[in-house]
Amino acid sequence: MVITDCKIIKTRLNKVRDNMKRRNISVYVVTTEDYHISEYPGDYFKEREFITGFTGSAGTAVISMEEAALFTDGRYYVQAELQIKDTGFHLMRSGLSEVPSISEYCRTLLGKGEVLGFDGKCVAAGFGMELEEAAKSKGASVDMEFDGIESIYTDRPSFPHTDAYYLNEKYSGESIESKLKSVRQIMTEKNCDCHIIASLDDICWLYNIRGNDVWCNPVIMCYSCIFEDKAYIYTDEDRLNGEILEAFHKAGVVVKPYESIYKDVADMRDRRILIDNKRVNVKLLKLSLLNEFCQVVQAENPEVILKSKKNPVEISNLTDLHVDDGVALTKFMCWLKKAVKSGEYVTEVTAAEYLDNLRSNISDYIELSFDTISAYNENGAQLHYHATKDNCAVLKPEGMLLVDSGGQYLRGTTDVTRTISLGPVSDDMIRHYTLTLKGMLNLAGARFLKGCTGFNLDVLARAPLWNEKIDYRCGTGHGIGYLLNVHEGSNGFRWKHNPGHNDLSVFEPGMVTSDEPGVYIEGKYGIRIENEILCVEDETNEYGTWLQFEFLTLAPFDMELIDVSLLERKDIEQLNNYNKMVYEKLSPYMNQEELAYLKANTATINI
Amino acid sequence: MVITDCKIIKTRLNKVRDNMKRRNISVYVVTTEDYHISEYPGDYFKEREFITGFTGSAGTAVISMEEAALFTDGRYYVQAELQIKDTGFHLMRSGLSEVPSISEYCRTLLGKGEVLGFDGKCVAAGFGMELEEAAKSKGASVDMEFDGIESIYTDRPSFPHTDAYYLNEKYSGESIESKLKSVRQIMTEKNCDCHIIASLDDICWLYNIRGNDVWCNPVIMCYSCIFEDKAYIYTDEDRLNGEILEAFHKAGVVVKPYESIYKDVADMRDRRILIDNKRVNVKLLKLSLLNEFCQVVQAENPEVILKSKKNPVEISNLTDLHVDDGVALTKFMCWLKKAVKSGEYVTEVTAAEYLDNLRSNISDYIELSFDTISAYNENGAQLHYHATKDNCAVLKPEGMLLVDSGGQYLRGTTDVTRTISLGPVSDDMIRHYTLTLKGMLNLAGARFLKGCTGFNLDVLARAPLWNEKIDYRCGTGHGIGYLLNVHEGSNGFRWKHNPGHNDLSVFEPGMVTSDEPGVYIEGKYGIRIENEILCVEDETNEYGTWLQFEFLTLAPFDMELIDVSLLERKDIEQLNNYNKMVYEKLSPYMNQEELAYLKANTATINI
Repeated sequence: MVITDCKIIKTRLNKVRDNMKRRNISVYVVTTEDYHISEYPGDYFKEREFITGFTGSAGTAVISMEEAALFTDGRYYVQAELQIKDTGFHLMRSGLSEVPSISEYCRTLLGKGEVLGFDGKCVAAGFGMELEEAAKSKGASVDMEFDGIESIYTDRPSFPHTDAYYLNEKYSGESIESKLKSVRQIMTEKNCDCHIIASLDDICWLYNIRGNDVWCNPVIMCYSCIFEDKAYIYTDEDRLNGEILEAFHKAGVVVKPYESIYKDVADMRDRRILIDNKRVNVKLLKLSLLNEFCQVVQAENPEVILKSKKNPVEISNLTDLHVDDGVALTKFMCWLKKAVKSGEYVTEVTAAEYLDNLRSNISDYIELSFDTISAYNENGAQLHYHATKDNCAVLKPEGMLLVDSGGQYLRGTTDVTRTISLGPVSDDMIRHYTLTLKGMLNLAGARFLKGCTGFNLDVLARAPLWNEKIDYRCGTGHGIGYLLNVHEGSNGFRWKHNPGHNDLSVFEPGMVTSDEPGVYIEGKYGIRIENEILCVEDETNEYGTWLQFEFLTLAPFDMELIDVSLLERKDIEQLNNYNKMVYEKLSPYMNQEELAYLKANTATINI
Repeated sequence: MVITDCKIIKTRLNKVRDNMKRRNISVYVVTTEDYHISEYPGDYFKEREFITGFTGSAGTAVISMEEAALFTDGRYYVQAELQIKDTGFHLMRSGLSEVPSISEYCRTLLGKGEVLGFDGKCVAAGFGMELEEAAKSKGASVDMEFDGIESIYTDRPSFPHTDAYYLNEKYSGESIESKLKSVRQIMTEKNCDCHIIASLDDICWLYNIRGNDVWCNPVIMCYSCIFEDKAYIYTDEDRLNGEILEAFHKAGVVVKPYESIYKDVADMRDRRILIDNKRVNVKLLKLSLLNEFCQVVQAENPEVILKSKKNPVEISNLTDLHVDDGVALTKFMCWLKKAVKSGEYVTEVTAAEYLDNLRSNISDYIELSFDTISAYNENGAQLHYHATKDNCAVLKPEGMLLVDSGGQYLRGTTDVTRTISLGPVSDDMIRHYTLTLKGMLNLAGARFLKGCTGFNLDVLARAPLWNEKIDYRCGTGHGIGYLLNVHEGSNGFRWKHNPGHNDLSVFEPGMVTSDEPGVYIEGKYGIRIENEILCVEDETNEYGTWLQFEFLTLAPFDMELIDVSLLERKDIEQLNNYNKMVYEKLSPYMNQEELAYLKANTATINI
């Protein structure tokens, strides 16, 4: 863990306060977001880290002349406490009942006539509106154009600026024109003649481009405005190659300078603007709302649902890809078991490297879809565990390694978890592994009517664990992009209803979702089994349209961790079918040793 | 089916139009509701039937000088068409895409400056507000005090006026004082110092009284206002006996004339009023909203959730009652099978009468909780089938009879369905019966975390049927009152989400819910298996508080309809456990023949 000298932080804090005074700002909020409210903001957007010294992925700083607070959640209490010690910042443990929300806290700091400042481009629309409300309620105002750190941020990493590449129809399966047509159709249904987009994956999907601006997310920094007869993409033209520009030209897409969208939105006239307040920064939303010549319709980006339904070309590519991805994972598991059992020196990190290397040799590999999680025994119980070279466990020939990994390829994105026994395991481990597997199979085997959401189906994965009074404190699964974000809306599996946040859409054919129940026993071990499942249409009869799932992921489970006596007949039938498919598809690529491993772990279980 | 002479209806319609003219009403809406928006309004409230001739339980008439329309839903298209033939009314088939909503239809009839009239006491608040919106949007106004039928309604049944009786704590399990305390606590939490109630079951629960004003619902017509230091019940005092008045006096409950609530609400000063817009007529809601001295907080009646959580005395009574209720049902099934097989003349109606008679002999029996549904073979496929003496099937020694029935007792309310084979049955019948049973058991056997609603769990009952692409077009279950309405909120099982209508509350210990999946094959047969299940608390561990269900209903299933080969091991274990309990609890009350029947149908199945 990096600890920045507390004197350095104090100096920076003083300079920030000088900047605040110069602009008459009483309270300054520094967020972790990028301009596009991406899940993984790039290094350029580390103002909050720069000013606090805290390096975690989630946190917000609130600075006044007297106070300096860092808000972060339960994952980071310990780390943040250490990193901000003696810096002048004090920790606000978000989630504890006695800790106010950030906007409530700002409210208490603000006086009448004072100004709350932040950089509206780095603040999510909902949170920005909340801050504005808080300020107003105290008779204070808001300055959304204040960046008190920029001028003092020395050695700031450069703004992301990678080359984009074009995803031709062999991979994307649909032309830009066709996608624009679908988007415009939804715009028309909503009676809108303009649609502003800021979410990078939505834009890159729409224009069939990819890049490398955000870690593990193959996107480029851009905005877009779509009208009935034209479309603008706001990005630096020098990163677009001839193939892209030609495709854009054909589809009536015009390239404009990245930052010019703000002026364009302010200058817009007589438009009904469709904008997604969950996928845009507050500056862009406010510019739209304050434009007195335009009306704003706040609704989910049409691209969200459109891109979640993978088209036949994408599905065919994914089906093909999962053979290669599964071969890599299977070879890895075979090697791992043998290496650890034979006493080879393997750590969580070198194990992950071995797997990452196998993936990187797949023909159309681009990058990982997220940092491989390799967590041995008790480390597996931490949902956000990240091993580093300096701080990782050495694998012993006992217990289990949890490996959650995936790659980005031209043929799509993968995400798979296997928990692997390395030697003797406890009865509890076997029992919990088997129940997790039952849950995973139970959900994947569901047949259901169109209209169902992940709220309806989630319990199918949990039931075998709930029956033993065990739960996992997270959703059961998330949507997955196509050579895009590994976490993608709007499909998913969850059981908890948050009023106002029931944003899981109904399942539709083509949606790809992860199915990943688990058991996490603190201080002991973690088990997760994750397969990707594809929603497919069965028939329509008098009751409606029937849907079901098909497995995309191809990789054996660990037979040494399965207690067959806990399986019902239908579990065994389902498992045998899956194993047969895995063996048939993967066996051609295995050497003799791997084949023996694959055979043993996909053997038919007698009912 | 009663057909009123169309000339009579035409004459009534003319008189109504005269009344409308006199009061300057352009459009008149006549509903089916009583003043309390009860599920089963009494005969007094049959103005819509009087004016249209249509006798169905759901429908709304809209009358203008030129038009007369009757809106009703799919259950009644055929019946309504016949009953309103040549009356001047035309049918509006609600639910068909080309048919406008009632308020949309009113909008088209209204002109600027015109008046839409209805009796606000017989119109649900939500619908009334919608009508007002529709009128306003055309520059028309609303007269909520217009009843154009009252003056011409000869031979009107008298207003419900049965004697009330007191439910002492041996049955109610909680004093009025204690219930008022809980209600006032919720009022305080919502920062309210007044709470207006119009829903009869909520009021009767609160004041531990019952009556017989509404068919199958043991309630009396009343309203209530609760304040911090006193409580008013608005009803005719002559129906309250000394025991009730004494209990009221002790609890600080004052009796006021039934109709005087309207004046009291209009005269109220400086109150924050808690009112449930889903459980009140529009007149009462508007009086509250228009009272410029008061504020209104629209929220669910606190009584809804309080009464849904049955207290230990109620649970103990129910547990006891279900033995008697189950004995009656078991004796009935034993008799039925023998009678039909031996060639006795039994119809759907005489079968129901036999069962109703057995129930009526239970010591604390009061009335049925709904009209017994007795539906043979293809009649069972109609969800709302009602056999009458003149029109009912004769039972043959083949196929199945579906019997859905229940009673009102001092010890509570019951609701149970069994589908009974009467002789040879088809393989499909056996298959569908077994899958229905699997679903019923699967849901009843759920263990789950506190926080779950019926949206999360519903799929457990449907999964075995969905797996075969069969669905039932209704919820899986509803809450059940205690000597109150057999359909009671706020618990239930459903899978379909209607935005803004996700009103299923989270399960809590003490809630009683029906678990009643089914298979309905049009023109062939219907299968439903319904048990009541009680939510009970298990332990609390690091994951949260675990809940599960216990069976209240005690009655054997039909072994001749079960294909054991379709059951998984866990189904068989659960079924054996249930059967053992049923046999133990019911066998002491059976004669030799009934005992043999019970034994055969609760026999242990070998795994």
